[in-house]
Amino acid sequence: MKNTFGTAVTLTLFGESHGAGVGAVLDGMAPGISVDEDFIRHQLSLRRPQGAISTPRRETDDFRIVSGVYKGKTTGTPIAILIPNENTQSGDYPEGMVRPGHADYTAQCKYHGFQDPRGGGHFSGRVTAALVAAGAVAIAALRSNEIYIGTHIRDLAGLEDRPFDDLTVDLETLDDLTFPVLDERMAERMREEILAAAEEGDSVGGTLETAVTGMPSGVGEPWFDSVESVLSHALFGVPAVKGVEFGEGFGFSRLRGSEANDALRVENGKVRHLTNRNGGVNGGITNGMPLLFRTVIRPTPTIHRPQASINLSTMENVTQLSGGRHDPAIVHRARPVVDSVTALVLCDLLAMRFGTDYIAQI
Amino acid sequence: MKNTFGTAVTLTLFGESHGAGVGAVLDGMAPGISVDEDFIRHQLSLRRPQGAISTPRRETDDFRIVSGVYKGKTTGTPIAILIPNENTQSGDYPEGMVRPGHADYTAQCKYHGFQDPRGGGHFSGRVTAALVAAGAVAIAALRSNEIYIGTHIRDLAGLEDRPFDDLTVDLETLDDLTFPVLDERMAERMREEILAAAEEGDSVGGTLETAVTGMPSGVGEPWFDSVESVLSHALFGVPAVKGVEFGEGFGFSRLRGSEANDALRVENGKVRHLTNRNGGVNGGITNGMPLLFRTVIRPTPTIHRPQASINLSTMENVTQLSGGRHDPAIVHRARPVVDSVTALVLCDLLAMRFGTDYIAQI
Amino acid sequence: MKNTFGTAVTLTLFGESHGAGVGAVLDGMAPGISVDEDFIRHQLSLRRPQGAISTPRRETDDFRIVSGVYKGKTTGTPIAILIPNENTQSGDYPEGMVRPGHADYTAQCKYHGFQDPRGGGHFSGRVTAALVAAGAVAIAALRSNEIYIGTHIRDLAGLEDRPFDDLTVDLETLDDLTFPVLDERMAERMREEILAAAEEGDSVGGTLETAVTGMPSGVGEPWFDSVESVLSHALFGVPAVKGVEFGEGFGFSRLRGSEANDALRVENGKVRHLTNRNGGVNGGITNGMPLLFRTVIRPTPTIHRPQASINLSTMENVTQLSGGRHDPAIVHRARPVVDSVTALVLCDLLAMRFGTDYIAQI
Amino acid sequence: MKNTFGTAVTLTLFGESHGAGVGAVLDGMAPGISVDEDFIRHQLSLRRPQGAISTPRRETDDFRIVSGVYKGKTTGTPIAILIPNENTQSGDYPEGMVRPGHADYTAQCKYHGFQDPRGGGHFSGRVTAALVAAGAVAIAALRSNEIYIGTHIRDLAGLEDRPFDDLTVDLETLDDLTFPVLDERMAERMREEILAAAEEGDSVGGTLETAVTGMPSGVGEPWFDSVESVLSHALFGVPAVKGVEFGEGFGFSRLRGSEANDALRVENGKVRHLTNRNGGVNGGITNGMPLLFRTVIRPTPTIHRPQASINLSTMENVTQLSGGRHDPAIVHRARPVVDSVTALVLCDLLAMRFGTDYIAQI
Repeated sequence: MKNTFGTAVTLTLFGESHGAGVGAVLDGMAPGISVDEDFIRHQLSLRRPQGAISTPRRETDDFRIVSGVYKGKTTGTPIAILIPNENTQSGDYPEGMVRPGHADYTAQCKYHGFQDPRGGGHFSGRVTAALVAAGAVAIAALRSNEIYIGTHIRDLAGLEDRPFDDLTVDLETLDDLTFPVLDERMAERMREEILAAAEEGDSVGGTLETAVTGMPSGVGEPWFDSVESVLSHALFGVPAVKGVEFGEGFGFSRLRGSEANDALRVENGKVRHLTNRNGGVNGGITNGMPLLFRTVIRPTPTIHRPQASINLSTMENVTQLSGGRHDPAIVHRARPVVDSVTALVLCDLLAMRFGTDYIAQI
Repeated sequence: MKNTFGTAVTLTLFGESHGAGVGAVLDGMAPGISVDEDFIRHQLSLRRPQGAISTPRRETDDFRIVSGVYKGKTTGTPIAILIPNENTQSGDYPEGMVRPGHADYTAQCKYHGFQDPRGGGHFSGRVTAALVAAGAVAIAALRSNEIYIGTHIRDLAGLEDRPFDDLTVDLETLDDLTFPVLDERMAERMREEILAAAEEGDSVGGTLETAVTGMPSGVGEPWFDSVESVLSHALFGVPAVKGVEFGEGFGFSRLRGSEANDALRVENGKVRHLTNRNGGVNGGITNGMPLLFRTVIRPTPTIHRPQASINLSTMENVTQLSGGRHDPAIVHRARPVVDSVTALVLCDLLAMRFGTDYIAQI
Repeated sequence: MKNTFGTAVTLTLFGESHGAGVGAVLDGMAPGISVDEDFIRHQLSLRRPQGAISTPRRETDDFRIVSGVYKGKTTGTPIAILIPNENTQSGDYPEGMVRPGHADYTAQCKYHGFQDPRGGGHFSGRVTAALVAAGAVAIAALRSNEIYIGTHIRDLAGLEDRPFDDLTVDLETLDDLTFPVLDERMAERMREEILAAAEEGDSVGGTLETAVTGMPSGVGEPWFDSVESVLSHALFGVPAVKGVEFGEGFGFSRLRGSEANDALRVENGKVRHLTNRNGGVNGGITNGMPLLFRTVIRPTPTIHRPQASINLSTMENVTQLSGGRHDPAIVHRARPVVDSVTALVLCDLLAMRFGTDYIAQI
Repeated sequence: MKNTFGTAVTLTLFGESHGAGVGAVLDGMAPGISVDEDFIRHQLSLRRPQGAISTPRRETDDFRIVSGVYKGKTTGTPIAILIPNENTQSGDYPEGMVRPGHADYTAQCKYHGFQDPRGGGHFSGRVTAALVAAGAVAIAALRSNEIYIGTHIRDLAGLEDRPFDDLTVDLETLDDLTFPVLDERMAERMREEILAAAEEGDSVGGTLETAVTGMPSGVGEPWFDSVESVLSHALFGVPAVKGVEFGEGFGFSRLRGSEANDALRVENGKVRHLTNRNGGVNGGITNGMPLLFRTVIRPTPTIHRPQASINLSTMENVTQLSGGRHDPAIVHRARPVVDSVTALVLCDLLAMRFGTDYIAQI
């Protein structure tokens, strides 16, 4: 479905970095869910460039809800959100230029030169602004069902945040952080590392770790619509994501079965797991424990250093030196994107399992 | 779509571990592709238990192509493959038993006790036999287009195989190996490690690394049908997969942008990348370099050690001690499954890009 | 999805007329639904050739439930049903032959000669046996929710049955009829007409009219997943269906708005419509009235009369004279197929609306 | 998919009659297709109210292409088109009002009162303006491949236009007609009939007949993605459509097989059919003959006559008397909608069959 994902709840993205704007159509959200424009603005602010550690490009992200919201609540029909572009500098992007690490070359292979090349066009991270705006509606809907999502920077340039501990406390803490690192001193060191990379005209990568509390058990499907399948599908749709792992993830390769299994107990007539090494999912289906997964964000491809590249118009080798604005790190800016994708997928899975009204508690 | 994946080329799985059999329906394969039953048998043999390092359960995997093949070639209409079960020991699975690490509990949450509990029922790895049989058709179709897939055990219980080097040579080497490790001595050490775990009634996990050569550039989609999205969706459908990463994957979190970008050159009028850190995909679309990704396989959940668990019939705490047959490792057995999933996804992506006849070279 | 339809509840068909067999995979049915093999047999008997008014081909339709049913109830995982073929006479179908009205020529255009030509191969109505077997499970599930489906021959070769009257009575009556015509005398005249056509080596067409009682209101979607959209999609998948209409259908073209609108009344706190000209659907969504629609079945294309045709092997004009067995009418045999398609679509729509457990009353 | 249809080429609709606007996202159109805004305007003008035979509501349909078009050509990425609303009179729609024949009641059943009730909200025919704008892009793309679509009013209120004759001439003729009736005198009589109904505060229905020339053979799928399935699915998504038939359609019920089959001949090495009773499709796949189908448009539900209805807020019986603007006929206004739906479906089918570049002749 290319720019659409989901089954019962679907999101469709459109727009380009330097075109008229970007937008999203969110279809299938239950009716009667409160839409708080301030919360959407707050989520968008988390995605926006932040001071010295971000691109100087200023984006106001003034959005407009075109449809699907009536008297402050979702109608149940498609919610279209439009975010016009402003402050674009198309002069930065000369014809035929291929920026290593970007989709410039692959876009050419697929679209034969008809793609909008300005600022990466439709491949630009700019499009995630629309995703975040739509995701805010889903996040709020989940919260009203006491399902909470939180993401921190698990590591960045080799610096590691502390692991999640008490999720109730940690997710609340994250809510107040624009730079989502649980260990304050580590947050400072990460920021310094970003600035150091920026000074060298370079960029850094990192890993986001996401937890979700409150998901009911029995959601998801065996085989090809496993919770991991559906979440990873959507997460890998986010530019710069190159890996997704659940629970112990790649760490499972060093564990024994006796360490990898989560023991179960009955307590007060309820089932609980003593550990959560499987990230809340067994056989593709939620087991009632928090969802836990990590998403790696590759370093921003745009850097201010000379790179060996090519010009597609002249088919000549060139030394590419980006003059445009750039982010020395997008890990923290990817956080609300990952939260949004997660929320949208969970709304979809819940609607598939419990029906289209479920999330609205109707 | 639960037990179906794909768009132009789709696979539907059915069956249970101890029922009448397992099977697959492969729909949308181009007409005129030769179907070699010996090659299907070969692929199935790679998935079957291997001597001391596997379960003693003997499976002959006699399959029957019910439809979709006429005069030795695909017709273009659905190919149904049925693999009857034999040698099942249902007595091994008492009622209400929850085996930690398995889907027993989540199946209960979803199916309310109506699921077939014998040997994991529909959640059993047994179902992958049908997937491998169908995948063999796709692998052969890709080979006739000079697209080759190869997977080795990148690491197992902390032991590391050498990385891929010359892919042409390495993929050929892997073709002849039932235990797919490029470094022979390391293969021996891994086997020993598996036996050591088996003696302790335990199991080990590992990471599979897959390379694909010959994929044309320009395949895949931006955003939600990225090559990574579609591949990971299908790979996470395989039981025991808990992480998928492309190119440098989670290693990107320690790289700088200047290290993470693949430089490009024009040589003899053709574009090539000097490195392949992005695993053959930029912006979700193939760039003409080999696809490169890793899939982690968690340790087999069935172990011969006492585990804290519950009985769902009595809702009591129990010490679960598996008396059934089990695999101390399934990493090597997951190899043909991963190859099959990869082949099916690539056939689908190629059909979506170039039309339904493409793979048949009609 | 070619041979699969549905979203939450899906059906996948496979098989050929003269191959090993035909089959279906029904995925997404709720767990815990009783599966009565006698009822499946009964439904299959309605589809089977009936005495003088049908082909002399004898089909026993011995089916085998391969998966998805455990202890007589659905497990919630895929239900695979296999119906082996027997009594096939492949000699009837010489190479290159194109039978007018059949898919022989279009199959060649699409499959380039690799299709199984014997008896129409995968295009054969034989495949509907698998559809009917799967549909029986859905019909039974709906009945346990007091949703009833009934279909009669509205007209055949110009002879008209009386319209539906008291649906409760009429649907019960239809249950007992193998030749589903409400007016007994008209049933006799229709049979005579079929025999008359048969004697001339010809065949007749007809219209099936279907009613569904008990569907809750509020099911279906505006725009592209309207109840009419989804039902017609599946119905047009049945071979020989060339038209579908709801309520007054094509009769609306002669009505005025004042005649076409269904007036509403509140009675005892409940809403009801005074008429049902719109066939139970407004704006794509059920309104609580019975669903009412008609499906036209074109005359069987196989006839025993010389027809101008071509040979695709020699690319010559020929006079085609079918020597094979044939049905002078399939209208009555299409009845259980239409009922099955309807039931499967309704199970899907209900699961999408109310969740995957709904139909099982869990 | 609710408000999205298509697989390789998809359309997503959003918007409400009296909200900020309506819009469409067209995804998957090949890159490099010229987008002529004048042609979009022309198509929109065919959908707009026409003089005395239409509602006096004035719509300028000023559209804005937000994304997906660069330098006058499609980029290959999503084309978003926004049409702001103006001249809305919300006062016409009091709370709780149910207009017979509309979706007011079913929307309540599905959306529990949260739907936008003004002017039918998302159920309004106003949304088809966005569909027509997107469809214009598809129509133009098909024309560059010499695939032409034309629709006339086959009958209206019992008055019949002449049938299609020479399609090349007839489709050209239709291109110039805003009231698409081939027989000029009949066009005049139909207009009179509409005015007569309007004077009585009533409305009329009619049947649209569509022909498509130039479609290659071998497109479409057996069973559930038959050309008839996919087209009817999309056509029934259009409000007011209550029946779809192909070729002889419901007329097949009175034909014999010998009359219903289309004979074939080889002429100059090419295959052609001597008649086109099956509307260009056999076994779900195009046979190279023109596509031919009819779509019935029920009379506009809004009329200026008292109707028995209910008020959903008070749950009381009322006599509903619409004071709003209304169309005594929408048959002619539905014409560009049907053409657009047809074009979008055909672009999708062609892309699925021949790949994503096919329509762009790249």
